[in-house]
Amino acid sequence: MSVSGKVYLVGAGPGDPGLITLRGVECLKKADLVFYDYLVNTAILEYAPRAEKVCYRQRGEGRKVSQDEINARLVEAARQGKTVVRLKGGDPDVFGHSAEETTALTAAGIPYEIVPGVTAALAAAGYVEIPVTHGERASAVALVTGQQRPDKSDPLDYAVLADFPGTLVFYMGVLSAGRWSKALMERGKSAATPVCIVRRCTWPDQEIVRCTLGTVAQGTEERRLRPPAVIVVGEVVNLAPVKAWFAARPLAGQTVLAIRPRLESDALSDQLRELGANVIEHPVIRISDPADWRPVDAALERLDEFDWIVFHSANGVRYFISRLVTIGGDLRRLGMVNLAAIGPATAEELLRHNLRADVVPPEFCAESLAETLAGEASGKKFLLIRA
Amino acid sequence: MSVSGKVYLVGAGPGDPGLITLRGVECLKKADLVFYDYLVNTAILEYAPRAEKVCYRQRGEGRKVSQDEINARLVEAARQGKTVVRLKGGDPDVFGHSAEETTALTAAGIPYEIVPGVTAALAAAGYVEIPVTHGERASAVALVTGQQRPDKSDPLDYAVLADFPGTLVFYMGVLSAGRWSKALMERGKSAATPVCIVRRCTWPDQEIVRCTLGTVAQGTEERRLRPPAVIVVGEVVNLAPVKAWFAARPLAGQTVLAIRPRLESDALSDQLRELGANVIEHPVIRISDPADWRPVDAALERLDEFDWIVFHSANGVRYFISRLVTIGGDLRRLGMVNLAAIGPATAEELLRHNLRADVVPPEFCAESLAETLAGEASGKKFLLIRA
Repeated sequence: MSVSGKVYLVGAGPGDPGLITLRGVECLKKADLVFYDYLVNTAILEYAPRAEKVCYRQRGEGRKVSQDEINARLVEAARQGKTVVRLKGGDPDVFGHSAEETTALTAAGIPYEIVPGVTAALAAAGYVEIPVTHGERASAVALVTGQQRPDKSDPLDYAVLADFPGTLVFYMGVLSAGRWSKALMERGKSAATPVCIVRRCTWPDQEIVRCTLGTVAQGTEERRLRPPAVIVVGEVVNLAPVKAWFAARPLAGQTVLAIRPRLESDALSDQLRELGANVIEHPVIRISDPADWRPVDAALERLDEFDWIVFHSANGVRYFISRLVTIGGDLRRLGMVNLAAIGPATAEELLRHNLRADVVPPEFCAESLAETLAGEASGKKFLLIRA
Repeated sequence: MSVSGKVYLVGAGPGDPGLITLRGVECLKKADLVFYDYLVNTAILEYAPRAEKVCYRQRGEGRKVSQDEINARLVEAARQGKTVVRLKGGDPDVFGHSAEETTALTAAGIPYEIVPGVTAALAAAGYVEIPVTHGERASAVALVTGQQRPDKSDPLDYAVLADFPGTLVFYMGVLSAGRWSKALMERGKSAATPVCIVRRCTWPDQEIVRCTLGTVAQGTEERRLRPPAVIVVGEVVNLAPVKAWFAARPLAGQTVLAIRPRLESDALSDQLRELGANVIEHPVIRISDPADWRPVDAALERLDEFDWIVFHSANGVRYFISRLVTIGGDLRRLGMVNLAAIGPATAEELLRHNLRADVVPPEFCAESLAETLAGEASGKKFLLIRA
């Protein structure tokens, strides 16, 4: 009998890729296969570079996959020995059908783990600053599905929900707003109760509509609001500032296209994000291996013939060292050579590899280097590394 | 006027350090100051190595700090230009008094960000496998405080809670279990309603007590249960397996003391954790700077005199290179020397720094090295690096 794989039911959080948990990322990193809901931010899938990724559209457009089919695929993949991540928007236990999946896995004898996530109601509380619980105003918060059909055997008791002593947050309630708001008002909840619709919560295009219980149905229809959204109902909606921190950031709503080569850690992108920008990394410059390494390798073989190696960029430093090691050499081969870096970032990259630039010209171009070395350079042999 | 710092209100999650968000960790990494609740797992504070850390005991033993005092300290620290993380157990907006803090920050003109977290109710759902929402059984879940005093102007309406069409989860409800369970039963909720107390949810010593609404008060008293706990009330409690995945892991409940020096990434500890062990890293061997660097520096100055450098450990490699760079040198200083590594891990560490071991002896001790080099070693000068 072969050893079974394992299934991780992981909450991806509400959308902002920063709101997945560390454990969730750990699971993605070792995944062979990721089954993800269509509401999951695909930026999160980049944590699973080696996994096959399959999107399930349980709602909305596209082919609908039944819960039974999902269960069967999870079992089948795990039986093949795969490490599988079932990635769900928000938290797996808030209207996420986790119990159906774990029941199937248990029946098949497949080990699993559940990794909780940040649920949309609390993300809305944080990003729109609606204090869904509040010392003076809300001693409880209820997360309620807006998808329950009226013909269900155990229908939601709207009379009780209407009197609920706290905040109500409806999930999947945009298209059904007419039904549930009417039901709540018929059972006595005031039409003036403040309501806030938070669409695409925590995403760069997060949208907020303030209304009341009496106008929420009309509002969603007139604006043709589409899922996904959570709808917060309660007095605490009035405590939210006009512009919460998320919308008030200097670059909120701005999209920045970063066309530089993607780096492991990009200080500029991080700073832009901190200021609220939606940074899309779309490298139009791709640094890649040359079609033919032979000229480079030939130079690497004759390193001791050079007096200076001039690095034009941090990428040049990385590619140079990586190739040197790949062909069997190491940094000791640089023992007799002088190093120059065009610009401080290049010099920093050298230092990251425990090498020092002997010269960094005051202006960041080759001409300035030539001036700096004038006198010294006469008769010397230079190797220029561009990337 | 000086530039103000920024305050991050961060949800630490329920306890398991893997359940904090990536954004939460980012904030901790840049923090100058962390004000944390006493319920926060202090393992999470290790993500803020350079920050000053201050614990606030709002409840329980120790000095109680008032909300006003916390607000004042947040404002004061930010006015000093500090990056402050206010680290709260669970999610900042679930009974976390975030609104009080953001109101004070807004009044003082201090920028802030709220980073949501995994709240305890949903962590209990995941780690105890109680499907707090369920397609057939629970169309809603309510998070309710157990701390509300009966004299409050807007008291919880237990008649409504008793009829709530879904799962109830009480926070901070252990010591008040007698009061709220009695109130629910008086308003008609069945004494037979299943209840599960989850104490120290997601911690290695997580404790689960199953009872009913009729016995929960007696149960908490007899067992002298102490906070923190969440208490789940509803039919879905019966859907939880006897042993959920968290308790069923092979090494669940086992504590492993790792006494090796702490490494950035420790594969053994990771595997033990995956199997459910509580790995406490308590290095009894601490690799640290020598009291006096002078003998080392003297050897580093005379590197060209040596024929071989013998590294006894990966730590030796790291310390050697770091010191060499600190005193102004770089790896080119090794240009003329041979390198030996005692063991493959040491050789791997050399390769990580783009250096190759010329010799790795078949047995991992100095004697074996001497044999390997016999003949070659005669008359040669060796530098031995131990750490």
